[in-house]
Amino acid sequence: MNHGGNLHDAKALFPEASEPWIDLSTGINPNAYPVSFSDPTVFTRLPSQQAVRELEHAAARAYGVPDPCLIVAAPGSQSLIELLPRLRPKGRVAIVGPTYNEHAACWMGQGHECIAVANLSDALSERTDNIVLVNPNNPDGRVVVAPELARAAAIMQARGGWLVVDEAFADIEDGVSIAHRDLPGTVILRSFGKTYGLAGIRLGFAIAARPIVDEIRAQLGLWAISGPALAIGIAAFADDAWLVSQKDVLRAAVSDLDRVLSRSGFRIVGGTLLFRLARHPAAASVFDDLARAGIWVRKFPHDAAILRFGIPPKDGLPRLEAALNGRLG
Amino acid sequence: MNHGGNLHDAKALFPEASEPWIDLSTGINPNAYPVSFSDPTVFTRLPSQQAVRELEHAAARAYGVPDPCLIVAAPGSQSLIELLPRLRPKGRVAIVGPTYNEHAACWMGQGHECIAVANLSDALSERTDNIVLVNPNNPDGRVVVAPELARAAAIMQARGGWLVVDEAFADIEDGVSIAHRDLPGTVILRSFGKTYGLAGIRLGFAIAARPIVDEIRAQLGLWAISGPALAIGIAAFADDAWLVSQKDVLRAAVSDLDRVLSRSGFRIVGGTLLFRLARHPAAASVFDDLARAGIWVRKFPHDAAILRFGIPPKDGLPRLEAALNGRLG
Repeated sequence: MNHGGNLHDAKALFPEASEPWIDLSTGINPNAYPVSFSDPTVFTRLPSQQAVRELEHAAARAYGVPDPCLIVAAPGSQSLIELLPRLRPKGRVAIVGPTYNEHAACWMGQGHECIAVANLSDALSERTDNIVLVNPNNPDGRVVVAPELARAAAIMQARGGWLVVDEAFADIEDGVSIAHRDLPGTVILRSFGKTYGLAGIRLGFAIAARPIVDEIRAQLGLWAISGPALAIGIAAFADDAWLVSQKDVLRAAVSDLDRVLSRSGFRIVGGTLLFRLARHPAAASVFDDLARAGIWVRKFPHDAAILRFGIPPKDGLPRLEAALNGRLG
Repeated sequence: MNHGGNLHDAKALFPEASEPWIDLSTGINPNAYPVSFSDPTVFTRLPSQQAVRELEHAAARAYGVPDPCLIVAAPGSQSLIELLPRLRPKGRVAIVGPTYNEHAACWMGQGHECIAVANLSDALSERTDNIVLVNPNNPDGRVVVAPELARAAAIMQARGGWLVVDEAFADIEDGVSIAHRDLPGTVILRSFGKTYGLAGIRLGFAIAARPIVDEIRAQLGLWAISGPALAIGIAAFADDAWLVSQKDVLRAAVSDLDRVLSRSGFRIVGGTLLFRLARHPAAASVFDDLARAGIWVRKFPHDAAILRFGIPPKDGLPRLEAALNGRLG
């Protein structure tokens, strides 16, 4: 159970659970950007390089990247997490955590030595060739502020190393992203699927200095991004109003979720607008009770007293509340 | 101009051409398998491992692969062409050609030495660590028969090498594929997008011994295939009737195309049901004339007297005929 979103595992472990399952095990926006295809050739033709450039321009504008040459599209940010360790000489990598476990898994899988550190200062005080930080962090939502990142980027650049900043959950968090700052030494990752609620289409981005961007593009190869993903991304990035509206929608949903969790004995200990981390003295048994009620949340090996809740879809919160109340009753 | 399908290049080179362009520069079926999505979660959710397994089972059945453990799905056969050279120790690779140029480009890009050979016997007589053969070959449609491939596979296996057989155009060519034969020593590539006319969704397969399949799956990483591609592939592979009907449709289309080309002074020198290779003493100027008429075909650096024609869509053949006649008139 290394990842969220694995409802098949949930069904196998809890075959008697109430259907349909509500999947709160991910940080994916439950309000998906509306998908429509006016041009059927996105399915039939090979994706064109021009469409890729158009998407990258649209993404650069949306993310505030000063120059579209500093951003490269990829088939999901996971593909970039897997690729980055292949681009660096084998060395020591500090991972600021606990965090999304694929970073350490992928660097170690490519023969790098990984050290788990608690914060960015500790990472910098180690003799490391690269640092990986998720900002805001997953699962606790912890944020490292931009000036601190700029300082770390300068240090890593002087060392010839990379500061990888995974901004998968930064899209709708005000003032968190450093994508607009053009900081040499950083490789910033962005995820399209989480904010836009479209994890199935596989779309993500890396923002970095030009030579790194060019190397990533070469490694991803020809026609790496599907035609439907290109078309959806181009449309969605142009729709500023939708993104603005989502902030309000998600703020309200988070506030409702926090209230329901707090009433049931949870203490909210972190999160973003796309997930909440909550502590409960009996978290392990709450996890099982929720699963039996057909609600799949995320637990963590490093701390049995915390659970992470994705934002429920509109009709999901009453069921969560009922399941938590049923437990109390 | 290394690849077909680049209509943006066509438009840039021939800005005055008649619109809309007809793209005959690829070997993609102009009759696309009908796309529909009954389940919106293919866009919203992370693609599940279970859906990947389901797709691989469906593909194994459709391709006649005896055991679904011997096939792995990938985001387009191009992604496999790029991956295979990374899985082998640096060595000498014989490419039977002239053929699809990405094979040599990708092996050389990963530091292998490539030798161009004219046929499989020549490839075997060289001291090579791997052999790559496209069967039927692109662009000439040449076919190497199964017993010869079985013999070559046994030789390569004894050497500890791979015989890579790219069957991108084998789906609807009777008796060409060796996917059903479980030949250790071979790595067979299949393309979904060409036969099913859906190159935009990025879907392809490798068929090989279990350890190779497992290694490819590990290298492709998590969520490599999009949700829409999984859903379309599962539906299409179950639709035997559609595939059978396409053979008839494409046989008729090829026969019509061959007639039109022959009448205009071309000699058909090769091809498959998805493209025709034709020779004309003034091929280079025919290419330009067709482009000015908004018809984009494929020319080749190794032989200026040949052109490759994709199968025109229903309304495309009269325009091709008119353009060729206009040239004569």
